[in-house]
Amino acid sequence: MRHRLKDVAERAGVSVKTVSNVVNGYLHVRPDTRARVQEAIAELNYRPNLSARNLRRGRTGVIALAVPELDLPYFAELARHVVTAAAERGWTVLIDQTGGSHEQERMVVAGIRDHMIDGLILSPLALTGEDLAGGADGTPMVLLGERVDHGPADHVVIDNVAAARAATAHLVGLGRRRIAAIGAQRTAEGASARLRLAGYRAALEAAGIAVDDRLVAPAAAWHRADGAAAMRTLLTTGVRPDAVFCFNDTLALGALRTLHESGLRVPEDVAVAGFDDIEDGRFAIPTLSTITPDKERIARLAVDLLAARLDGDRDAPAQALTAPHRLTPRESTLGRPDR
Amino acid sequence: MRHRLKDVAERAGVSVKTVSNVVNGYLHVRPDTRARVQEAIAELNYRPNLSARNLRRGRTGVIALAVPELDLPYFAELARHVVTAAAERGWTVLIDQTGGSHEQERMVVAGIRDHMIDGLILSPLALTGEDLAGGADGTPMVLLGERVDHGPADHVVIDNVAAARAATAHLVGLGRRRIAAIGAQRTAEGASARLRLAGYRAALEAAGIAVDDRLVAPAAAWHRADGAAAMRTLLTTGVRPDAVFCFNDTLALGALRTLHESGLRVPEDVAVAGFDDIEDGRFAIPTLSTITPDKERIARLAVDLLAARLDGDRDAPAQALTAPHRLTPRESTLGRPDR
Repeated sequence: MRHRLKDVAERAGVSVKTVSNVVNGYLHVRPDTRARVQEAIAELNYRPNLSARNLRRGRTGVIALAVPELDLPYFAELARHVVTAAAERGWTVLIDQTGGSHEQERMVVAGIRDHMIDGLILSPLALTGEDLAGGADGTPMVLLGERVDHGPADHVVIDNVAAARAATAHLVGLGRRRIAAIGAQRTAEGASARLRLAGYRAALEAAGIAVDDRLVAPAAAWHRADGAAAMRTLLTTGVRPDAVFCFNDTLALGALRTLHESGLRVPEDVAVAGFDDIEDGRFAIPTLSTITPDKERIARLAVDLLAARLDGDRDAPAQALTAPHRLTPRESTLGRPDR
Repeated sequence: MRHRLKDVAERAGVSVKTVSNVVNGYLHVRPDTRARVQEAIAELNYRPNLSARNLRRGRTGVIALAVPELDLPYFAELARHVVTAAAERGWTVLIDQTGGSHEQERMVVAGIRDHMIDGLILSPLALTGEDLAGGADGTPMVLLGERVDHGPADHVVIDNVAAARAATAHLVGLGRRRIAAIGAQRTAEGASARLRLAGYRAALEAAGIAVDDRLVAPAAAWHRADGAAAMRTLLTTGVRPDAVFCFNDTLALGALRTLHESGLRVPEDVAVAGFDDIEDGRFAIPTLSTITPDKERIARLAVDLLAARLDGDRDAPAQALTAPHRLTPRESTLGRPDR
């Protein structure tokens, strides 16, 4: 005899919803409740049949999350939050790596996974509004992180300009004047690199500090190696910076390494701020000052937008939601606290 | 008119196989060839129909990769390699997080994704041979990293005992005698924690150094915070270590942070070695000595084993393959090279 969810719920003395939460890997079930449900599942040898349930609703129960790179810690952390938020709805997440390539992203949007997924959450690096207009095939899609202008898709962003401005203003507030930026890229108007550069410039202008283009270092990718190389270049410009705002934390960790190798003290000689608040930065030597986007919130908003689209009006106007962020100053700008 | 792979190949002047490689995101296509194929795809507005192809073969074209945590860098790096190796076969990877929980892992093995996946690659933390014997439902499965004894599944491992022994012997070779270990866990016989502890003990014994249990620190999880806490505990045992072998790199990065906060120099006062060679360690201050498992190889062997099982004899005896590893000494044991 094949047992059903209801049988497990009865045996465990909990609601069907609670059993569903345990089965779907929802994390916020009380440990003793979870244990009781798991015991009932084991006793009844219960097997959830997600496929059948989803098929009845014309769904696969699978959504795709497409990110540029899984092993950039920011995307790995974001992926974890998306998997968790999706699991609460009983969804499985199929993860795609686009490598940030324009063509791969276009293919994802064009529906390369036709009929396999109910919806798509995409963190684009290279996508344009034009790509979006041509794609999608009616598969609901939510964009993360980058603002692709004039695109018809739902959207979750943080205010990149305000965040970059806050990070730079923090460095200004510490009395720094030759503040460099690492991470500039020739990307689309609404891309993070452009927005963070705009915030950096705005903070300097507000402080009456002229922007010195020799202090703006490009980075083809935002990895540690790119940050380390950009910092080496900055140290040979002739205008030695007394601070550097890196457009993400991995760039900043690379910059810290170069400063260390150059015998410069952080923050005494050069203060360093990053962006993303990845776990690495909290244990770095020195700990990394950064912008903390609310990643859990970003993931949850994206899943909620997708659910609203799946269950509701697919032709309703696209929504753009903004998740909060905050400045998190640590040793790389404040120095070591006295103990 | 709906164009086919053949049409794209003709227009681009390449083989069908090459188009397939581009469409499937295979990374090792020459850039100019890739560009030509992408141009042809755009001109013809070609849409690959993976689902139809797979359905003809009775497959979904989807495999699952289940790892304990996506934001442990080791698993993120491994996931990237699995996604890449799978893409070369035109497979999409559905990624599951088990949280290392015994029940979640059992559910994955028991076929919670019935009919949705062709095969499963699982990196188990808590699974036993008994779980394996009861599960699987005929869905081919490959286990990664941990040796689950008496299990009927295919298996890709590294030689954890030899690797841990090499890391510890490296510390012995530097003249260290009070060598601590961080990461011990009460886990199953074949689990990494047990095997790495065995290698640590073997190296000490081979060097005629008595194992001092006060120098073996447990860690409930293998995150930076656990390594930092374990190192704090070790520093209060009364037997101050002059070296520490951490069972993974994130533990070691946490230990480095605690040593820094305690004013101890690495490696002069305490030499530190990790395990996994995650990117973080290459940019840490100091850079981290570690064991480098061949992650790309591990991923490729796992995908190959799965493919062999899918295309060949499902009842053939289970295979266990061992991927190579090497010791990678850096500043955290050797000190800063003179320049």
